[in-house]
Amino acid sequence: MMGASTKQGYEIAKKSRKIVRLLIEDKIKNFSKEERKIIERVVHSTADLDFAELIEIHPNFVNKSLEALNNNEDIFVDVKMVKVGINKYPGNILCYIDDKDVIKLAKKKQITRAAASVEHLVNTNFNGIVVIGNSPTALYKIIEFHKKNKLKVKSVIGVPVGFVSAEEAKEMLKDSGIPYLITRGPKGGTSVAVAAINSLINMRDKNEF
Amino acid sequence: MMGASTKQGYEIAKKSRKIVRLLIEDKIKNFSKEERKIIERVVHSTADLDFAELIEIHPNFVNKSLEALNNNEDIFVDVKMVKVGINKYPGNILCYIDDKDVIKLAKKKQITRAAASVEHLVNTNFNGIVVIGNSPTALYKIIEFHKKNKLKVKSVIGVPVGFVSAEEAKEMLKDSGIPYLITRGPKGGTSVAVAAINSLINMRDKNEF
Repeated sequence: MMGASTKQGYEIAKKSRKIVRLLIEDKIKNFSKEERKIIERVVHSTADLDFAELIEIHPNFVNKSLEALNNNEDIFVDVKMVKVGINKYPGNILCYIDDKDVIKLAKKKQITRAAASVEHLVNTNFNGIVVIGNSPTALYKIIEFHKKNKLKVKSVIGVPVGFVSAEEAKEMLKDSGIPYLITRGPKGGTSVAVAAINSLINMRDKNEF
Repeated sequence: MMGASTKQGYEIAKKSRKIVRLLIEDKIKNFSKEERKIIERVVHSTADLDFAELIEIHPNFVNKSLEALNNNEDIFVDVKMVKVGINKYPGNILCYIDDKDVIKLAKKKQITRAAASVEHLVNTNFNGIVVIGNSPTALYKIIEFHKKNKLKVKSVIGVPVGFVSAEEAKEMLKDSGIPYLITRGPKGGTSVAVAAINSLINMRDKNEF
């Protein structure tokens, strides 16, 4: 549970998860069982009850995500903090932010490295899950390439954070047709992203829907 | 600024930082200039205005931290998400959570791997900054070894997150005599930890007090 591998870690996670459930169960009763698990894990990871009211999930998000995870499809992430936070996934986790070509491309085009790493992704055979924990510009690029039919995506966890562009990028994702999980407004972040994808990986592992 | 290395990233970070300053300046006017910079960066990174009211900083925290950073002292972190989030520091960033001996020790003692990694730290010549973004049990261990004079620490960023133990561990840090930065209550997390230490590293680089 929660990646805790020892008794002490397990006990803390178990008690915390119970508290979270009691604190937010009324707010999330209209979500499916799997969606509630994801939201509970996000609140557990952030100790921020607001997320119980800020998370929105597309009706096909859980199914499409689990389909990708069960096929060990690649997971693309915007930043390293998301990459290293993902637990126990046998597929590839792609993070191109430190790739030399990506750094060159970002400088040349004067775009963020996270956005440039999406341009790099388009040249691969990607057909997996996108997890954006930080960068609104990366999320814009995902949507742009999806609309141009240049990128296949099973689902997007789109929780970039910030007072500039993040909210707009998430609203645009909602209108894109891609199955999504978002956090409304400026809040979000790498911890939210990691909690959501790890929750899905956990469902896959245990067939624990 | 903010680790942004391209024009697009720089513009977003600059505008966001301005918004943050306007949103929280009244709440943080009693902090020093350096402390305000740290708090602004935390709020910028999380888009969570609550942190302007949850952060507490010991009067010697900034000076002691900059003393350590200017000497390129080691930075010890509890989890990998913190390690990979730290930018542009020429000193060592120590994270033992995947160390084989640490994993063995955690299993043997039935403690968390983060707590076991502090036991590992005690066997080194550490005299730097501790950054705890996730694990209350690691923070308890830091305080315990400090009290036993088994561990030298210049300062601690102690922002573990969660409804179990995190708040208690942070209150204990406040009574320990170690110069600290904490977030009151259950909230905190790796993004908060990373924002705080990167802000200090930035002050060191630029001598920008």
